[in-house]
Amino acid sequence: MRIVLSSIYLIEIDQSESLIFVSRFLGPDAALATDLYELTMAAAYFDNDERSDASFELFVRNYPKNRSYLVAAGLEQAIEYLTNLRFSEKHVDFLRRHPSFKHVSKRFFDYLLDFKFTGDVWAIPEGTVFFTDEPLLRVAAPIIEAQIVETYLLSLINFETLIATKASRVVQSAKGKGVVEFGSRRAHGPEAALLAARASYIGGCIGTSNVLAGYLFGIPTYGTMAHSFIMSYDSEVEAFKRFCKVFPSNPAFLIDTYDTVEGAKNAVSLNVNPSLLRLDSGDRYELSVKVRKILDEAGFKDTMVFVSGDLNEFILDDLTSRRAPIDMFGVGTELVTSRDDPALSGIYKLVSLKRNGKTVYRVKTSAGKRTIPGAKQIHRTYSDSREIQEDLLALEDEKAPPGSEQLLIQVIDQGRPACSLPKIVAIQDRARKQVASLPDKYRALVGSERPPVRLSSKLQEIANSMWNSHGGSRHT
Amino acid sequence: MRIVLSSIYLIEIDQSESLIFVSRFLGPDAALATDLYELTMAAAYFDNDERSDASFELFVRNYPKNRSYLVAAGLEQAIEYLTNLRFSEKHVDFLRRHPSFKHVSKRFFDYLLDFKFTGDVWAIPEGTVFFTDEPLLRVAAPIIEAQIVETYLLSLINFETLIATKASRVVQSAKGKGVVEFGSRRAHGPEAALLAARASYIGGCIGTSNVLAGYLFGIPTYGTMAHSFIMSYDSEVEAFKRFCKVFPSNPAFLIDTYDTVEGAKNAVSLNVNPSLLRLDSGDRYELSVKVRKILDEAGFKDTMVFVSGDLNEFILDDLTSRRAPIDMFGVGTELVTSRDDPALSGIYKLVSLKRNGKTVYRVKTSAGKRTIPGAKQIHRTYSDSREIQEDLLALEDEKAPPGSEQLLIQVIDQGRPACSLPKIVAIQDRARKQVASLPDKYRALVGSERPPVRLSSKLQEIANSMWNSHGGSRHT
Repeated sequence: MRIVLSSIYLIEIDQSESLIFVSRFLGPDAALATDLYELTMAAAYFDNDERSDASFELFVRNYPKNRSYLVAAGLEQAIEYLTNLRFSEKHVDFLRRHPSFKHVSKRFFDYLLDFKFTGDVWAIPEGTVFFTDEPLLRVAAPIIEAQIVETYLLSLINFETLIATKASRVVQSAKGKGVVEFGSRRAHGPEAALLAARASYIGGCIGTSNVLAGYLFGIPTYGTMAHSFIMSYDSEVEAFKRFCKVFPSNPAFLIDTYDTVEGAKNAVSLNVNPSLLRLDSGDRYELSVKVRKILDEAGFKDTMVFVSGDLNEFILDDLTSRRAPIDMFGVGTELVTSRDDPALSGIYKLVSLKRNGKTVYRVKTSAGKRTIPGAKQIHRTYSDSREIQEDLLALEDEKAPPGSEQLLIQVIDQGRPACSLPKIVAIQDRARKQVASLPDKYRALVGSERPPVRLSSKLQEIANSMWNSHGGSRHT
Repeated sequence: MRIVLSSIYLIEIDQSESLIFVSRFLGPDAALATDLYELTMAAAYFDNDERSDASFELFVRNYPKNRSYLVAAGLEQAIEYLTNLRFSEKHVDFLRRHPSFKHVSKRFFDYLLDFKFTGDVWAIPEGTVFFTDEPLLRVAAPIIEAQIVETYLLSLINFETLIATKASRVVQSAKGKGVVEFGSRRAHGPEAALLAARASYIGGCIGTSNVLAGYLFGIPTYGTMAHSFIMSYDSEVEAFKRFCKVFPSNPAFLIDTYDTVEGAKNAVSLNVNPSLLRLDSGDRYELSVKVRKILDEAGFKDTMVFVSGDLNEFILDDLTSRRAPIDMFGVGTELVTSRDDPALSGIYKLVSLKRNGKTVYRVKTSAGKRTIPGAKQIHRTYSDSREIQEDLLALEDEKAPPGSEQLLIQVIDQGRPACSLPKIVAIQDRARKQVASLPDKYRALVGSERPPVRLSSKLQEIANSMWNSHGGSRHT
């Protein structure tokens, strides 16, 4: 990058401060941000005296379109949720009056008032590349606790992982040019905008336009000006001059309000050294060439050409492959909604239960939706050149293959954080290295091969026998 | 509908209670949930002593795929945001330390600490059918205030309107069968899940699985059981029996964990009268026929067949057209992400300014993105049979055509609510009547005609002259 953009900013927030996300933003009512059936099932378990410890795994069934790897994101918010989850008197009163709970014992509502998550959680760290069928999160807890948290965990982790994965594709297509996330106005509400900014940064964006993401997470924030600013003055030149008065050092100009080429000429006619000129419409390739020429001829070799407006990984790949003279990209709608495939098929399934001290495996055999039984670990092996070779899914107590790396680490121990969480720059760095360790054939924009995920022979044998017997249960 | 589902519930919340949404859920940091450039522009206006009153309009540029009408939603949250927006000391301190604001006057930060929205707002009421280019919201305020609120208003209203519109399509395809919104786990985070539940209800869903939407908005909540509940017991029959113990009156059973037909047989083998059997996988048409037969032969004529799992308006249309014996649908992912087109192209543009007591019109003429100048009103005319005939866009002070209805009403007057807001059931009722008043040709699932939106001759003349002159300004 040639010069430092005047609007870049990274504020250091210590981890304790950035972890207040859920408690002040979603927190007071997070307990009810769930599907009704989680609570009716909880009541059914409670009044049947079902207190078994259960293991649930959160995994992705299918890749979104054209993807063949995923980038883990959302764990920090998930931990914050699990360690702060409480039902208020008002919440419980609402449930008491709900006709679904008419025959439920009074003791159940007392239980909810005292509810805390007391279980253990293992997770793949944020920024890690992972694949379908691999448990991204494993929750081991009394079955009621493990059940109640399903919906919230899924909505958080499905979304952040979807966007971190999309960002990874967009950033790869930018081939080293910076990508800024610009999509707040098209995200699915203000919270989605914030979470998308975080996930995009993890996936490799250099920053976001979202100020709250800067404030809460310490992500660098970027901004120029809107067309309305230009339109509020009687001419574009007057608007540029007014802006320079307040932002004199390397201002950033938006040049396409009326005509992009005229806008570039107006920008260089002022006696300032702009940090960048932004193009938001028209043929981005042709216009970037023309604008670069105007800048160079005027002696502004260091002024960057910044391009935005309905961009995605395919358009970026086209522009960078044709060597368009573009220095930075602002990517919005397509990134924050993962527009080509806006939902991740993450699911959360019961894999085993403890009954009388014994582990009992569980599977679902519904058409097209069968699951793999047992609490699992993921063992990753690398080639000599440190490329990802294969992932092995094994039962948690199986021996690790020599030289393998275990992807799941314990993050919650009996309801309390079991490790300190990395800063977001470290998560982004991990994602960058992880994607780089993925052989090229697994990360093409289209037609990519699927990385190999193998089941251990023991796990394969148990799964086969349970799938064939159509039964949901098998004791160890 | 044949029987009342045991898990239906509508709690009456008076409006004052349901309006606390933003202030307790997003509120404390809502002021920073914005794009950085809104704040840099605010600083530029402030330090240039630019205090003009401006009018901005929020409108949708293009219909999402296959849509040719839109259902307005999100206004209640927008009003809550505008009437509660404040910057805290910590927010302002963060901005003070941001390098973008290095040359900004100290007075600007004092201004932010005292900031309140003091403007006027006109809006199309929620639940109204409207079209592209029509202002859904018009904000008239000192330009800094009108600018700062852009991003938040767009992310709220774009999303809720997108989902209310999608829900309207899904509900029409259900041809009178009830549709429940089931998508929280795939929504873009927990807040998107809540907003999607609200918007889906406005668009015609009979309820949602999202408990918080019941608690905050009084929307009926539905739920059955998850596969994990079935899997937690050694057999499906045992799981059903345990559930009946706690939910004895008309329990709802999920029957596809292992085998749908066996599941239906298990459900009717118990001595209870189930409210519904739910199918979540496999060939929904064939299985619904088989399950209906099993129910009828066992004498459970009133038990409903409830179908879910990756449904959308096209699948519903197919199933209802073939008269599948399905009584209710649960629609999740496709609805809450508007999966076939997950972003609404709502934008917020400056249309006029007051300068020295005169109104000055503004347009943008960027390639493919030009705007219509002037603060506008929408005049809707109806045919004799009360079908929507045409919308006329005119300047706000033009005379209304005889017999026309004005779509924009004032909702905020000098920063304070200017009218009482309808309950959500009234909004849903309005949407139902509005969609019914739209001629069939404008609401086909595919290939629909676009409803006519005409510019008044005065507006057309002003727009033409401004577009042709490439200029952004015209005085009245």
